Amino acid sequence: MRVAVVGASGYVGLELLRVLRRHPEVEIAAVTSEQRAGRPLGEAFPGLAGLLDLRLEANDPAALAGRCELAFTGLPHAVSAPTVAGLREAGIAVVDVSGDFRLHDLADYERWYGRHGAPDWFGKGVYGLPELHRDAIAGAELVAAPGCYPTGALLPLVPFLRAGRIEPAPIHVDSKSGVSGAGRKPDADLLFAEIDGSFKAYNVGGAHRHVPEIEQEASLAAGEPVRIAFTPHLLPATRGLATSVYARPRGALTSAEARSLLAEAWADEPFVRLLPEGTLPSLAAVRGTNFCDVQAVVDERTGSLLLLSAIDNLGKGAAGQAVQCMNAMRGWPETTALLEAPLLP
Amino acid sequence: MRVAVVGASGYVGLELLRVLRRHPEVEIAAVTSEQRAGRPLGEAFPGLAGLLDLRLEANDPAALAGRCELAFTGLPHAVSAPTVAGLREAGIAVVDVSGDFRLHDLADYERWYGRHGAPDWFGKGVYGLPELHRDAIAGAELVAAPGCYPTGALLPLVPFLRAGRIEPAPIHVDSKSGVSGAGRKPDADLLFAEIDGSFKAYNVGGAHRHVPEIEQEASLAAGEPVRIAFTPHLLPATRGLATSVYARPRGALTSAEARSLLAEAWADEPFVRLLPEGTLPSLAAVRGTNFCDVQAVVDERTGSLLLLSAIDNLGKGAAGQAVQCMNAMRGWPETTALLEAPLLP
Amino acid sequence: MRVAVVGASGYVGLELLRVLRRHPEVEIAAVTSEQRAGRPLGEAFPGLAGLLDLRLEANDPAALAGRCELAFTGLPHAVSAPTVAGLREAGIAVVDVSGDFRLHDLADYERWYGRHGAPDWFGKGVYGLPELHRDAIAGAELVAAPGCYPTGALLPLVPFLRAGRIEPAPIHVDSKSGVSGAGRKPDADLLFAEIDGSFKAYNVGGAHRHVPEIEQEASLAAGEPVRIAFTPHLLPATRGLATSVYARPRGALTSAEARSLLAEAWADEPFVRLLPEGTLPSLAAVRGTNFCDVQAVVDERTGSLLLLSAIDNLGKGAAGQAVQCMNAMRGWPETTALLEAPLLP
Amino acid sequence: MRVAVVGASGYVGLELLRVLRRHPEVEIAAVTSEQRAGRPLGEAFPGLAGLLDLRLEANDPAALAGRCELAFTGLPHAVSAPTVAGLREAGIAVVDVSGDFRLHDLADYERWYGRHGAPDWFGKGVYGLPELHRDAIAGAELVAAPGCYPTGALLPLVPFLRAGRIEPAPIHVDSKSGVSGAGRKPDADLLFAEIDGSFKAYNVGGAHRHVPEIEQEASLAAGEPVRIAFTPHLLPATRGLATSVYARPRGALTSAEARSLLAEAWADEPFVRLLPEGTLPSLAAVRGTNFCDVQAVVDERTGSLLLLSAIDNLGKGAAGQAVQCMNAMRGWPETTALLEAPLLP
Repeated sequence: MRVAVVGASGYVGLELLRVLRRHPEVEIAAVTSEQRAGRPLGEAFPGLAGLLDLRLEANDPAALAGRCELAFTGLPHAVSAPTVAGLREAGIAVVDVSGDFRLHDLADYERWYGRHGAPDWFGKGVYGLPELHRDAIAGAELVAAPGCYPTGALLPLVPFLRAGRIEPAPIHVDSKSGVSGAGRKPDADLLFAEIDGSFKAYNVGGAHRHVPEIEQEASLAAGEPVRIAFTPHLLPATRGLATSVYARPRGALTSAEARSLLAEAWADEPFVRLLPEGTLPSLAAVRGTNFCDVQAVVDERTGSLLLLSAIDNLGKGAAGQAVQCMNAMRGWPETTALLEAPLLP
Repeated sequence: MRVAVVGASGYVGLELLRVLRRHPEVEIAAVTSEQRAGRPLGEAFPGLAGLLDLRLEANDPAALAGRCELAFTGLPHAVSAPTVAGLREAGIAVVDVSGDFRLHDLADYERWYGRHGAPDWFGKGVYGLPELHRDAIAGAELVAAPGCYPTGALLPLVPFLRAGRIEPAPIHVDSKSGVSGAGRKPDADLLFAEIDGSFKAYNVGGAHRHVPEIEQEASLAAGEPVRIAFTPHLLPATRGLATSVYARPRGALTSAEARSLLAEAWADEPFVRLLPEGTLPSLAAVRGTNFCDVQAVVDERTGSLLLLSAIDNLGKGAAGQAVQCMNAMRGWPETTALLEAPLLP
Repeated sequence: MRVAVVGASGYVGLELLRVLRRHPEVEIAAVTSEQRAGRPLGEAFPGLAGLLDLRLEANDPAALAGRCELAFTGLPHAVSAPTVAGLREAGIAVVDVSGDFRLHDLADYERWYGRHGAPDWFGKGVYGLPELHRDAIAGAELVAAPGCYPTGALLPLVPFLRAGRIEPAPIHVDSKSGVSGAGRKPDADLLFAEIDGSFKAYNVGGAHRHVPEIEQEASLAAGEPVRIAFTPHLLPATRGLATSVYARPRGALTSAEARSLLAEAWADEPFVRLLPEGTLPSLAAVRGTNFCDVQAVVDERTGSLLLLSAIDNLGKGAAGQAVQCMNAMRGWPETTALLEAPLLP
Repeated sequence: MRVAVVGASGYVGLELLRVLRRHPEVEIAAVTSEQRAGRPLGEAFPGLAGLLDLRLEANDPAALAGRCELAFTGLPHAVSAPTVAGLREAGIAVVDVSGDFRLHDLADYERWYGRHGAPDWFGKGVYGLPELHRDAIAGAELVAAPGCYPTGALLPLVPFLRAGRIEPAPIHVDSKSGVSGAGRKPDADLLFAEIDGSFKAYNVGGAHRHVPEIEQEASLAAGEPVRIAFTPHLLPATRGLATSVYARPRGALTSAEARSLLAEAWADEPFVRLLPEGTLPSLAAVRGTNFCDVQAVVDERTGSLLLLSAIDNLGKGAAGQAVQCMNAMRGWPETTALLEAPLLP
């Protein structure tokens, strides 16, 4: 199958190329980049020299018609929607990694993101977390790959919500993301000298755009409204996203029961790894992979449930997940091209 | 005043030397290090060449008698207690930065640390957080400088507990520490290649020794038992400690009220900086200093109170705080030698 | 083909597992580790959970007889030689990544390393730099994969030596290595807090064990004795090795001629990438790969030739190169399992 | 004495504020920043809250007349010259940290930097390396603080050039700088995700603007033309600059002689620390200081002289040196405000 990577020069785009190169069913037929259009890929990114013989082109859906069957769109929200619409109108299936097609409620979208760039297409995307929506993804032509924070929060959390074992509000989610999650824009706050040796929260108090996305999926799982108090932070690291979830059990819950619940819920999932008791998720263990490592511990002294997860924000948090969605859409084994070992150390 | 730094070759010891060198009332009369005894300080630590003309000696309280009036002890817990006892018996005032004299209840100590190394002296230390116990410190000859995690948690939290504005249990404390907090021991898990680009929780579920210390002081402030669900993490950074505290307000509470409460509580404290609304604590802003930067935000959607703080774990979290205690013990302005600008960037 | 990885829990061992997992001709039949013998691999290294269902065993050549046809040995020098001897005596082909079989002259070995652990086998290894010794490797049963520093220095340098275009002595080699090159031993000098934000030379003045290795291969290429003034440094980075070589041209030499010489010498080499004029090697571009990126520039003002290279010290500098050697030994395409894109960013 | 810091919001400006705050003879009377004019300093830089009660103003020399006696100018080259001219015309002494007043030859300046912004003032600056030009600095009203690379190269090199003990051409200088040396501009190549874990040369082949500056001062010291082959690199570190110099001795030279030569040359210099034999300069040992640590080693096998140095690029490489120059200009002890211990770790 021929695929295109639209917005290939961002960090998600580069990771898509890395993963797709090893996919046996896929040929990368086109790569686009507004800023670097016209340049050979190996010249724009010397790291790719000798690996992909392609020339970057402008982001033009019409120009891709007939040249590929599926496109990954790695553009910023708002910019993404009209491109996605154009691709769909050209008959191209799309896995979008922006926030433009994740929410179900347009009013919600407008409150958090502003005007939508292709309202006719709003709501036509399937939320691309295969562990939750595998069947819907299988039949979809427009899949919205989840945000990195929602992925890291939902995978450990959903089994407890589905089983009604925790109070739905408030649930505290304290997340720490590698800087690549903020993208490649020339922002003085993201300079090495600003981030190195530092650590900082941002968009606290329920101000981050991933809040409605987490609540939408968590509420669906719970069958009742879930409220998330969410605090994202920037780590002095390039890749990876660690999440701590604090929730109040409904009724008695031991660490062993919590672990059993996770084990059963994700028993057949190749990318969710419940770690052995006493082993905690670390970013190193998932670096460059599509894994989500999870752990559950009940603090007996306070009765609190602590859920921990680790993903690579560019892997299971973006590009890896998008490829997993493509695999699900096309009926290929979901692990195709994705069962790689982490880069250790 | 002549002072000694006992255990000068650990990270806290080195930071003590850096701060004490600029203290106008103090002469560093002796430095000890079991491992490097006999070597000139500038040879053991080339960074100190030309700055301090001293030779490291063994940790021997008797040998310090008559040579100094006050000693800082930067030894591991259990090892520290007998040394502190020896120093006190030699008539030397002590600021201890281990965990040996922080707790009030010996049973508590034994449960968390094991046998105490000088039970006759247990309970004779004053808890050295000047913002809470200034008067007691002023008259003390044995002060136990708090742990780094308790300092970062208590300074934003205590005003709310004193005012009865939050539920006392459970309070969630999610902390992220620079690696220097783990000390200088040759541990393969602390190698650069293990920590770089990674991030990981440890001692979760109420297993960290700072839990009883936080609860002791928080309960004293609240006048009722406080229960802390505590999750510490190791950051890929050398210095600094960031803390997020999640608490449930008792009754209505707005962000503005929360900020007012902090502002009033710490109005006269030179080292607690309430940041302007919208500015969040960062490790860079306190690097190398004795400041604790704090912020409070109420998440209106969930009703949760979020408290954030940042300290330098070796500064306000250890050596800076110890010097502040010495200043309070001797009646000098507490800011002496401590009002330095952070190392930016 | 069944292979074993002996010494699998070091950093080179882990990288070997990562690469060998994707090798279509290879089955990893055994993994050994003195320290972690008896533990499942996925438990010893949570990052490998779900990827390799193997149990670590002790380093015992006899126990591997009949279970594998080839072994990679990732042990420290001196420890490696007797193990290699045992493996060869059991009829197992070996790719050794220690320094025990790289030198041709036993006196040389003893001067730099001390007593050899299997003198009967000394000199029976082929130096495993396929770009230099492809034919000899093809027929060998014992291949000594080069050191990381020699690989980074020789690939840009050899074409100039072979062509007689530079003076053979002295050639200055200034190298900067990621910390993983120092291995996984619990050494206080390699702690995160020591390396982070720092940078330091070590073993200067011709004291590093890779000097005789570089000179051996450089002299063979030149047909006359080459003398290398070598300065290695430790970077505050985990992976990667950057090398600057300074040499005096024999006769006139322009940047264009220097680039042509490199281009021609390595035209058919899949892993040596001569970068476009004006693009300089960076560690990011080779992270996780088997590439060696090179560049040549003549400083017209001083007449000096500057050669720059970048490799991943665990890839082309160790594990990747070892797999490339295995491919050459077995007649498989040398790129098998090795043409992966770098981890960007 | 009242001083101004012009261009206070760059990294050099922030370091100047940090150092000047502890200077007993100095009052910081004004701080300027084009971008942040009008904002209180503690609001623009939360790290400075509570430390300096000043408001940033625009860069206007006329507005500073009568309000200060000396100004530090931390602006980019070309922008700096007219500001410096304006300050001098207003009778204000200046220590300039740009490249605008370091070179002696206007044609040289124009070749490397382009048109000069205040040609009437060109050549009126004294080169502000006190170890070389102390007497001239003492009487000067316009001092040009050296670049960071020249400082790191000249301090180990000049004693050998003055004594005629090395060949003057070519001398190879391989330097590695922390990223803060590139300033605070929002450049995508300086993002954390680009620099972290990477390492790269830039401006190779004699293309860096510090080349003519090194050669000017080296040739003055040698009394004959010196030619430098210079290779700068960016380290994945925020602060610090390490330099390796490779030179050919004239006549026999041992390590002991080389060390003696350095020891004698800098015996009275408080900021040049010749490390003990066997100890090599590291960036950690000079972090946040005005020290330049140096070492010399002769490689007996090749006859090469290796000189190593380490400075903090923002300290002895910029702000610290500028304050040392001010001390020399005003006849204060040069160490005033500058003899601080490094931030360890």
